[in-house]
Amino acid sequence: MADTQHVLDTPSPENRLAVYDDDGYLAEPFLDTVREALGAEDANFLQVVVVPLHESELGDLLRNLDHDERQTLVRLLGEQFDYTALTEVDEAIRLSIVDAMPNEQVAEALRELDSDDAVYILEDLEEEDRTEILAKLPFRERLRLRRSLDYPEESAGRRMQTEFVAVPPYWTVGQTIDYMREEEDLPESFAQIFVVDPTFKLLGAVYLDRILRAKRPAKIEEIMHETRHAIPAETDQEEAAQIIEQYDLLSAAVVDENERLVGVLTIDDVIDIVQQEAEEDFRRMAGVGDEEISDTVITAARSRFLWLLINLATAILASSVIGLFDATIQQMVALAVLMPIVASMGGNAGTQTMTVAVRALASRELDIYNAARIIRREVLIGLLNGALFALVIGVVASAWFEDIGLGEVIAIAMIVNMLAAALAGILIPIVLDHFGVDPAIASGTFVTTVTDVVGFFAFLGLATWWFGI
Amino acid sequence: MADTQHVLDTPSPENRLAVYDDDGYLAEPFLDTVREALGAEDANFLQVVVVPLHESELGDLLRNLDHDERQTLVRLLGEQFDYTALTEVDEAIRLSIVDAMPNEQVAEALRELDSDDAVYILEDLEEEDRTEILAKLPFRERLRLRRSLDYPEESAGRRMQTEFVAVPPYWTVGQTIDYMREEEDLPESFAQIFVVDPTFKLLGAVYLDRILRAKRPAKIEEIMHETRHAIPAETDQEEAAQIIEQYDLLSAAVVDENERLVGVLTIDDVIDIVQQEAEEDFRRMAGVGDEEISDTVITAARSRFLWLLINLATAILASSVIGLFDATIQQMVALAVLMPIVASMGGNAGTQTMTVAVRALASRELDIYNAARIIRREVLIGLLNGALFALVIGVVASAWFEDIGLGEVIAIAMIVNMLAAALAGILIPIVLDHFGVDPAIASGTFVTTVTDVVGFFAFLGLATWWFGI
Repeated sequence: MADTQHVLDTPSPENRLAVYDDDGYLAEPFLDTVREALGAEDANFLQVVVVPLHESELGDLLRNLDHDERQTLVRLLGEQFDYTALTEVDEAIRLSIVDAMPNEQVAEALRELDSDDAVYILEDLEEEDRTEILAKLPFRERLRLRRSLDYPEESAGRRMQTEFVAVPPYWTVGQTIDYMREEEDLPESFAQIFVVDPTFKLLGAVYLDRILRAKRPAKIEEIMHETRHAIPAETDQEEAAQIIEQYDLLSAAVVDENERLVGVLTIDDVIDIVQQEAEEDFRRMAGVGDEEISDTVITAARSRFLWLLINLATAILASSVIGLFDATIQQMVALAVLMPIVASMGGNAGTQTMTVAVRALASRELDIYNAARIIRREVLIGLLNGALFALVIGVVASAWFEDIGLGEVIAIAMIVNMLAAALAGILIPIVLDHFGVDPAIASGTFVTTVTDVVGFFAFLGLATWWFGI
Repeated sequence: MADTQHVLDTPSPENRLAVYDDDGYLAEPFLDTVREALGAEDANFLQVVVVPLHESELGDLLRNLDHDERQTLVRLLGEQFDYTALTEVDEAIRLSIVDAMPNEQVAEALRELDSDDAVYILEDLEEEDRTEILAKLPFRERLRLRRSLDYPEESAGRRMQTEFVAVPPYWTVGQTIDYMREEEDLPESFAQIFVVDPTFKLLGAVYLDRILRAKRPAKIEEIMHETRHAIPAETDQEEAAQIIEQYDLLSAAVVDENERLVGVLTIDDVIDIVQQEAEEDFRRMAGVGDEEISDTVITAARSRFLWLLINLATAILASSVIGLFDATIQQMVALAVLMPIVASMGGNAGTQTMTVAVRALASRELDIYNAARIIRREVLIGLLNGALFALVIGVVASAWFEDIGLGEVIAIAMIVNMLAAALAGILIPIVLDHFGVDPAIASGTFVTTVTDVVGFFAFLGLATWWFGI
């Protein structure tokens, strides 16, 4: 995972430059060269150019190759292909590579990986393949991976790395350093070591800089800190990431139900989780929750269909409100021309409030202590902008249709709908959150339904009454 | 920044439990107790309860206190107040605390902080206050902070920590460990040490686990790795974060224009940046770019106003399209009832496509190599879902208004608008990105303008032609 693995075969800076262009995209000459080598099945050339790549660079390369080229690359590189790169591409690409390989070869590849990366690849496979691959692994590794896979999806236990350094509390700093100098079977890289009792119950942890600063005779238990933030393996990955993030930890111990150390969650996983979760909220708001850019047309269309269907239902509801006033519209077509403006402004204002609310709820900046204040704030913002836009649209509508009454009606409807937008935008996420529903996933539909219905009803209803139609 | 600072005064696990409730919100009894102590001006009690808090916990507490309570807390704790917590709250709260303090006291407080945290607090202050505070600091610290502040806002130089450990390449591992054992003036915590020549030119870096695993006589230059990912101080923080994230670094060297080591960017900063940048895109799409939940009503209303004004302009444009067909609507009011459905479905489908596109551009998953494929994919999804919803709405509209012709017209308009939505949703972000405009900030307006205009025009135009009005 860490930089250290490139100590021996670091590509020269010139090579590095060649992988990406100035905008950070994969450089065209680089991609062309690789493609050419793939076409010519030039394994030697590929070994020089592709093997030194960082896993993320190899991931970017895989993403930009087509299906057949990927298979050729994996085949030509053989054992030298860095399977860690599979954790850098999305599920569709990962499966297209792994499914094409014999299970024997997958097992061989997984042995070279850190356990968290191996689990990442295994968890998406068919049950049958997974069992067969696990059966081909040595006992100890199989046990480790099985344990991770037994934890729920998206839990700390699934994401943890089972390789870590643990020492007893009565060891001295000198003993610990000597142990690390002699021991061959250490994790690829680590930022802290853990302190455990003979049953592997977690007692504490020490960051490496503390060890380096302490004198050799000092006891580990004297320099260790209590791991107040040990993470139960069943914890949801988002919650685990929040703990690591909140306390600025470089890595956190993962413990089982008996408080025994079972793994470590490292900060590079946390970054991925934090990013993923921040995006998820907004994707959900737009109804494209789990979609990946490499999904097929059918998969993507199906995943978006439900959201659009819900939107259709609410749009029909809003239209039926218009239907109530068909007689009014027939007498005054200007109303049909202007009504989408009222609805659209409400929809946008409501979305603004909702976006702020959904993120504030996710980051816990919005809670029971300040909810009343935030609601008041949103209502005031809604009234203020409502008044301003009422003025603007009132003047525009009066001039457009040469009818001051129409301007007055749309101005009042605008204030009413901006107020409704503020209330819907803030209250709907709060209420959904209160009942344990993810506010991101459903708020959008509800909010625009409210602003459409209120917008049409206020404008057309007011016009009917005002003009006595 | 790291956990180590709590070695001596770790709050007991029971205390920790008391700070937050089961949902992760600040616990009500805890908050009430603190408020009571503030009301009674009980400094001793506050020292026991508040001083052991982690900076992020103190930040959460500050957020939940009102303005006067915050001032009281800072005053009563005096030197024991952990000013690092100011980096955990948003700008409005930070300024309300710092502005109320005499500059003398701010300078005193800043001396205790890591340089990156000090800069974080200084950068928001008025020029005059900042100069006065800097003048009160010792020469070396002033120089360090000035150097950071001289780099552009949101650059790596601004976010870097200027405390780091650097050693010459010819030192042995033993010498290095001895140095760290003796030296008092080391950073609070660190994950790697840097290797520099006498002019401080960066030669490489060594992770601490490499040092611990090496034998004492080994030379640093033998175990160091080339820092391929040194970050020029002028680099934008987002780009810097991407490098650290891509290569799973725990920290990265920041270098000046002569490739001399000037600071280090640590991964906890990166998490904040990654989260901030992922959110920014979506906030921009909703037109609430830089808003913070603690902003005043006026500030928030003003920041949202522009987006709403743009939306008003585009809504009027869409309405003027309706105005073209006022005669048609007068003859057939059902059109006015149904037309928002076509526009709304297009708007939602376009937003879905746009959300996927904006994030794919930001993460560089969408580039010139696959743009054609992604565009084709979006068009196919649009046509597929368009055909499905055309069928549904066609049947609904025919039944509702007992007019099969109307059902046919709306079905065709639906397909046309869903296709327009797909094209607008994918092409607009790509084109904006190509011309160097952030696709997040402007895509939303353009996309819904297209779907509104096309939706109304297709539906009303088709109806006019179909029914020969």
